Amino acid sequence: MSKRKIIVVGAVAGGATSASQIRRLDPESDITVYEKDRHMSFANCGLPYYLGNIVSSRDQLLPMTPEKFKDKKNITVKLQHEVIAVDTDKQVVTVKDHTTGTNIEDNYDILVLSPGARARQLEFDVPHLFTLRNMEDTDAIENYITTHKVQRVLLIGAGYVSLELLENLYERGLSPTLIHRSEAINKLMDQDMNDVILSELDARDIPYRLNEEVTSIDGHTVTFKSGTVEDYDMIIAGVGVQPNSEFLKSSGITIEESGYIPVNAHFQTNIPNVYAVGDITSNRYRHVDLPAHVPLAWGAHRGASIIAEHIAGNKNITFEGFIGASIVKFFDYTLASTGVTLADLNQFDYAMVEVKNGTHAGYYPNNTPVHLRAYYDKQTRRLLRAAAVGKSGVDKRIDVLTMAMMHQATIDDLTAFEVAYAPPYSHPKDLINMLGYKARP
Amino acid sequence: MSKRKIIVVGAVAGGATSASQIRRLDPESDITVYEKDRHMSFANCGLPYYLGNIVSSRDQLLPMTPEKFKDKKNITVKLQHEVIAVDTDKQVVTVKDHTTGTNIEDNYDILVLSPGARARQLEFDVPHLFTLRNMEDTDAIENYITTHKVQRVLLIGAGYVSLELLENLYERGLSPTLIHRSEAINKLMDQDMNDVILSELDARDIPYRLNEEVTSIDGHTVTFKSGTVEDYDMIIAGVGVQPNSEFLKSSGITIEESGYIPVNAHFQTNIPNVYAVGDITSNRYRHVDLPAHVPLAWGAHRGASIIAEHIAGNKNITFEGFIGASIVKFFDYTLASTGVTLADLNQFDYAMVEVKNGTHAGYYPNNTPVHLRAYYDKQTRRLLRAAAVGKSGVDKRIDVLTMAMMHQATIDDLTAFEVAYAPPYSHPKDLINMLGYKARP
Repeated sequence: MSKRKIIVVGAVAGGATSASQIRRLDPESDITVYEKDRHMSFANCGLPYYLGNIVSSRDQLLPMTPEKFKDKKNITVKLQHEVIAVDTDKQVVTVKDHTTGTNIEDNYDILVLSPGARARQLEFDVPHLFTLRNMEDTDAIENYITTHKVQRVLLIGAGYVSLELLENLYERGLSPTLIHRSEAINKLMDQDMNDVILSELDARDIPYRLNEEVTSIDGHTVTFKSGTVEDYDMIIAGVGVQPNSEFLKSSGITIEESGYIPVNAHFQTNIPNVYAVGDITSNRYRHVDLPAHVPLAWGAHRGASIIAEHIAGNKNITFEGFIGASIVKFFDYTLASTGVTLADLNQFDYAMVEVKNGTHAGYYPNNTPVHLRAYYDKQTRRLLRAAAVGKSGVDKRIDVLTMAMMHQATIDDLTAFEVAYAPPYSHPKDLINMLGYKARP
Repeated sequence: MSKRKIIVVGAVAGGATSASQIRRLDPESDITVYEKDRHMSFANCGLPYYLGNIVSSRDQLLPMTPEKFKDKKNITVKLQHEVIAVDTDKQVVTVKDHTTGTNIEDNYDILVLSPGARARQLEFDVPHLFTLRNMEDTDAIENYITTHKVQRVLLIGAGYVSLELLENLYERGLSPTLIHRSEAINKLMDQDMNDVILSELDARDIPYRLNEEVTSIDGHTVTFKSGTVEDYDMIIAGVGVQPNSEFLKSSGITIEESGYIPVNAHFQTNIPNVYAVGDITSNRYRHVDLPAHVPLAWGAHRGASIIAEHIAGNKNITFEGFIGASIVKFFDYTLASTGVTLADLNQFDYAMVEVKNGTHAGYYPNNTPVHLRAYYDKQTRRLLRAAAVGKSGVDKRIDVLTMAMMHQATIDDLTAFEVAYAPPYSHPKDLINMLGYKARP
């Protein structure tokens, strides 16, 4: 393998893992990672739990530093270095060094793009309004909470990060209020299965309002669309993300109207020596022939590995597409789904079956109900999507159904799933089997 | 569908479920179930938990009675009626009525055999020696414990029922001792992974001796092969089972030397109108071409459904074979495996990969290690077997790998398993993915 110059844009999950995996297979090449922020490789899924004091130490979220990366893997990571332009003809990136304000140029043989997405910002200019996306946001929120002895927090938006954050701030002793601009909370999930989110809020007397928006903020006083006026010590908005792809506008790299970058089965963009990975990418489903956008951690890690294999010449290792598995804990409940989105279902002539049963044998203690459903194509009978909610055993059922969808399983195949049964775990006829039995023609 | 006379032998999992499933699809036929014991349809996997007072009420183990079965499903169940001979030419069974001692004959159009297996008995004739297989055994053990204020219990054998029983008697406050005639305890499991069984015993100061056997019993005094002499209030032997197939010796139904009945994909024996289901049957694996004997509850329920479908004329619903999933809880640990037995592995040129990692993100609390391994064929790279041990997340990984084996997945396919990830549940690169990555050529 010849010694090559490899540049990676972004040093979080997709970028740092790509660099690391490339080095594993290629000890020779020169690898440089440019990261616009102040930290590399932070555990982004752990940020809400850090703010809830569940993760005890900040170091646990930051397992890697540029020094360690250089030392262990001979990879150069430059923080606060933002790639602001790419010339794919000349194979050159322009990098803004935010520590000096100067621009530098660097050339590459291979470019890996993992710039991610950024939190969408609300247009209110007050110092106690935050978003949560990276380590800097986390530090700023943590610092504001302690410095200002924050008690009342307004959370805007009801996506999974907002829900995790709400739970964590509540468990920390703060008083959160949740608002969402529509009734469609936790939108990856079947809306009727989200009822437990509202009941968990009610059970703790945590205020929430749906179809509610902030119309103005005056100091700590917030005025809402509903006419309500309330004071908050702090506001955290979780109102979606925007892909960080503006810097690629004139690069020749294909970008979808939505701002995401389509990649092939090797995570190559339209330019063969330019790869993309992580939240910035747009992909396909594995089990059905539809586009998929699954901006989650698993895909970033999987993509990193496939990119490294391809760069190392292993062209037979390909990405067959996403299933779309996602999961969120909300107080005592787990909500999870896999397969196409609810909107994608409209592309099919589909049917739905569902079961509600205890997660294990009824006579064994600590049994809790699981509500499990599956959607399938009426013609091919192939599984399209599944969703589950309950206090226990939800992750297991969804993971099993993901594995089934990976293999184009039909709803009928589920009758033949040989569950590992003992009373503390499942049923001799498990909920997954029941889905298949209930769908019998 | 014409009205037929259907006889079912045995009214536990396989028999009662077969009768019930046949009725569901066939409202007309005359269905009679003969059961040699005093109870029908008891939850056999719950018996140890009942003796541990974990299952609070005996009724929870006995959801069905002949009266209810007649009333709800129009199925006749005759308890204490033992089928002692079958004439497949004349289509007649001879039934011994144990309540009167008389024999009767009954004819059938279709016969379903679910006679199960019985506990192997030790050749010591003392009143405080028991085995645990059915509800009568359970009642006898329970009665003896309470009547004789039992404290010291000797458990002979270390299969999964003995292990579950030991845990339950210990949690109930009794003092169990475990002996096993070899070092091969919990034999469905990889032996090195059984170390946690011994450490759990040690942690509770529960005595155990391997390579130990009882040589004589004199009243409550037990003499062992090792020379040890100890007194026990009660002895429970779990030293294997024997198939209840002697009554079929001259029936013309093919029985293997081992006493088990081979069945085809419809659970038919060699006689087309005679089906067999449950522990008495011998079958094939689904993922490899080898015989399989998987005498567990899931197979009994699945077989019952397939028999009912076939009797109803649905010949396209077939059994594709077992994977071999099994699981046992032992105090704080779960031990589970799936796929071919360890002995069967010798039929292959196989390799093994294993990972040890926390069941979820390291920074999230209550993390406990999982030891997960998989065996695969070196040539085809197909998964053959997997095993796991840990305090949490074991059932999930084994169930996912069972679903993978159902679809002939290779070890490499595991890299593409899209785990549902959030910090409380898994890793962005889960243990299942790691198995695939570690096996990379």
